[in-house]
Amino acid sequence: QNSLLSATGTTIFTVMSALAVQHGAINLGQGFPDYDGPEDVIDAAAAALRDGRNQYPPLTGVPELRQAVAAHNRRFYGLEADPNAEVIVTSGATEAITACLMAVLNPGDECVLIEPLYDTYLPVVKLLGAIPRLVRLSPPDWALPRADLAAAFGPKTKAILFNTPMNPTGKVFTGAELAFLADLIAKHDCYAICDEVYEHLTFDGWTHIPLMTLPGMRERCMRIGSAGKTFSLTGWKVGYITCDRSLAPNVAKAHQNLTFTTPPNLQRGVAVGLMKDDAYFAGLSTSLQARRDRLAKGLAEIGFGVLETRGSYFITTDFRPLMAPLGFNGDDVAFCRAITEEAKVTAIPVTAFYASQDAPGHYARFAFCKGEAVLDEALARLRAWV
Amino acid sequence: QNSLLSATGTTIFTVMSALAVQHGAINLGQGFPDYDGPEDVIDAAAAALRDGRNQYPPLTGVPELRQAVAAHNRRFYGLEADPNAEVIVTSGATEAITACLMAVLNPGDECVLIEPLYDTYLPVVKLLGAIPRLVRLSPPDWALPRADLAAAFGPKTKAILFNTPMNPTGKVFTGAELAFLADLIAKHDCYAICDEVYEHLTFDGWTHIPLMTLPGMRERCMRIGSAGKTFSLTGWKVGYITCDRSLAPNVAKAHQNLTFTTPPNLQRGVAVGLMKDDAYFAGLSTSLQARRDRLAKGLAEIGFGVLETRGSYFITTDFRPLMAPLGFNGDDVAFCRAITEEAKVTAIPVTAFYASQDAPGHYARFAFCKGEAVLDEALARLRAWV
Ligand SMILES: CSCCC(=O)C(=O)O
Ligand SMILES: CSCCC(=O)C(=O)O
Repeated sequence: QNSLLSATGTTIFTVMSALAVQHGAINLGQGFPDYDGPEDVIDAAAAALRDGRNQYPPLTGVPELRQAVAAHNRRFYGLEADPNAEVIVTSGATEAITACLMAVLNPGDECVLIEPLYDTYLPVVKLLGAIPRLVRLSPPDWALPRADLAAAFGPKTKAILFNTPMNPTGKVFTGAELAFLADLIAKHDCYAICDEVYEHLTFDGWTHIPLMTLPGMRERCMRIGSAGKTFSLTGWKVGYITCDRSLAPNVAKAHQNLTFTTPPNLQRGVAVGLMKDDAYFAGLSTSLQARRDRLAKGLAEIGFGVLETRGSYFITTDFRPLMAPLGFNGDDVAFCRAITEEAKVTAIPVTAFYASQDAPGHYARFAFCKGEAVLDEALARLRAWV
Repeated sequence: QNSLLSATGTTIFTVMSALAVQHGAINLGQGFPDYDGPEDVIDAAAAALRDGRNQYPPLTGVPELRQAVAAHNRRFYGLEADPNAEVIVTSGATEAITACLMAVLNPGDECVLIEPLYDTYLPVVKLLGAIPRLVRLSPPDWALPRADLAAAFGPKTKAILFNTPMNPTGKVFTGAELAFLADLIAKHDCYAICDEVYEHLTFDGWTHIPLMTLPGMRERCMRIGSAGKTFSLTGWKVGYITCDRSLAPNVAKAHQNLTFTTPPNLQRGVAVGLMKDDAYFAGLSTSLQARRDRLAKGLAEIGFGVLETRGSYFITTDFRPLMAPLGFNGDDVAFCRAITEEAKVTAIPVTAFYASQDAPGHYARFAFCKGEAVLDEALARLRAWV
């Protein structure tokens, strides 16, 4: 059997979600809303099952959705892309990430990754025979370590894969950071795979900037969006890639070998979603910001160190202030198991987002994309336990 | 960019479907029905969008569908598999094939493939750094060349990937052929990836036998089924893998890196489908057999050599008898283009299913999973053109 896969564990999200179910814990681990997406989007997907378009859609996606992706790029970012040659629909952002990596990497190529990182990045880079070059951000501010990043790029660098707004840190890359990245990418003549699934989940006036909109980056970036995150329908597994027409054929050929196509009725529902008015997108972030504030305030009151969340579904907490009072001297994995089993609230240990053992071991990630009563109950349980 | 992908063309199915649209041709190329799947399955999928289960389902599939897959294995093949540890739902059979290859192959491993072959097999094996060993079947009977097959297995063989009932040949592997394969697989201590998407599409009393049911094969096989083919809903992209609990963890981890999960509402629709009574499955093959007969008879009358189809959606024709009368002396690609552009009927050139240039160049594949009026009109067009 494949030794890389044999050596990796099942994803932490599945492990912790299973543990949550086992212990009847409130699951603030895996990042999914406990409320449904917009009714009109769901209605459109249901209606689309009835009009005889249940066979293979085009390889790169149904025309309605490719056009909606292009219109969304134009509306929010002033980014022009040809819906017929520069947009590819995938079966979720996970597939999109794998397809983009597969499209550009050859065995032996180097790919720069930024830690903490989402848990499919590293195995996929390795499975493709490419060599990961890791650059680490440090809490509490997760600023880009420019010298380290510059040092990670070299003659064998083919691509960088990064995530903004960023899971689990809640970081939103600044214009200056992106400009620094753009310089490195241009200088080393390589590609960027931009995992932008949380593009609409930004707070406090922070706004998402796609690297693809920076000078010189139009031809080098594969920008990935997610209907799951943008419409609170994480199970639908509809993602979309925007990239230059010089890259799109290889991305489409990778997609062809991974899933070939994506269910047409869900694509058509998502097309309705992307055409929703600006109020929808603003409302999404306002509502999530209120949830973030509710959870952050409660966690701070309980004694957690609460790091700033500028975007995403997640709050990273530093649980060191609680260790002495609790008589706890374990690591983040032990802590997240303990609160699941004893407090009946589940979080994700942040070391799961690091490749090596020397990651900081006193951070736990809580998802706030939950109903207010659920957040309140989780806080009450943690308070009682502490 | 990745050189393997850069060197491959877009899949022939997309190329020919696009050409069909361009020329207003009847598309008997790409294998998809032009009729819809069962209403109760579609209704179940639509209803499932409404009850608040639109977030990530479990990594290996919703319990209803895993249980239905296990029950289906038991009902049709007497195959017992634990729905909680030996069934994995994927985003279509294409993803299932890629996940199974990824689960077992290491770079440098050899993988036996049987030509003619489906067009994702070879690129995926190569993208994983494994080495394909090709064994070729010969028309018109497509019998297994036992000596060649035995010679293709060696000390580096890790797996064989094959398709029965087989696209494009219409072959159904016999019990004797499968027993020969099982011996080789056991002797060389390797795995089999069994693409059985056409399992219910067999004719004239031919029945599908899963290799997994042969002695010694339970632990070595990854058996792949497809809701698209079994329920005439090719766009849904729901596939399922049955394999031993010793293989399932790596298959699940591959799936985790490819798509992570598959839309829950479609999974729940497919669960309803797999629980349908025996009459449904019998009716599916009876109805397709009638379509096959209609198309085969008409093609033979027009002058095509018509090879036997025991299973699948496809008839392979030998167009040599038509070449002299038509004054045509090109190859199968030229022939399929010509009938698309001139007769306005699209077929797939069979050389697309071969890795090398020396494939037999006078076969064209026609799909018969179409309404009777469409088949009749296609025949009328071909007759008029000839
Ligand atoms: C694909 S499961 C994980 C969901 C998620 O993005 C997260 O919890 O980090
Ligand atoms: C996945 S597109 C091709 C459908 C099919 O299996 C075929 O036409 O051979």
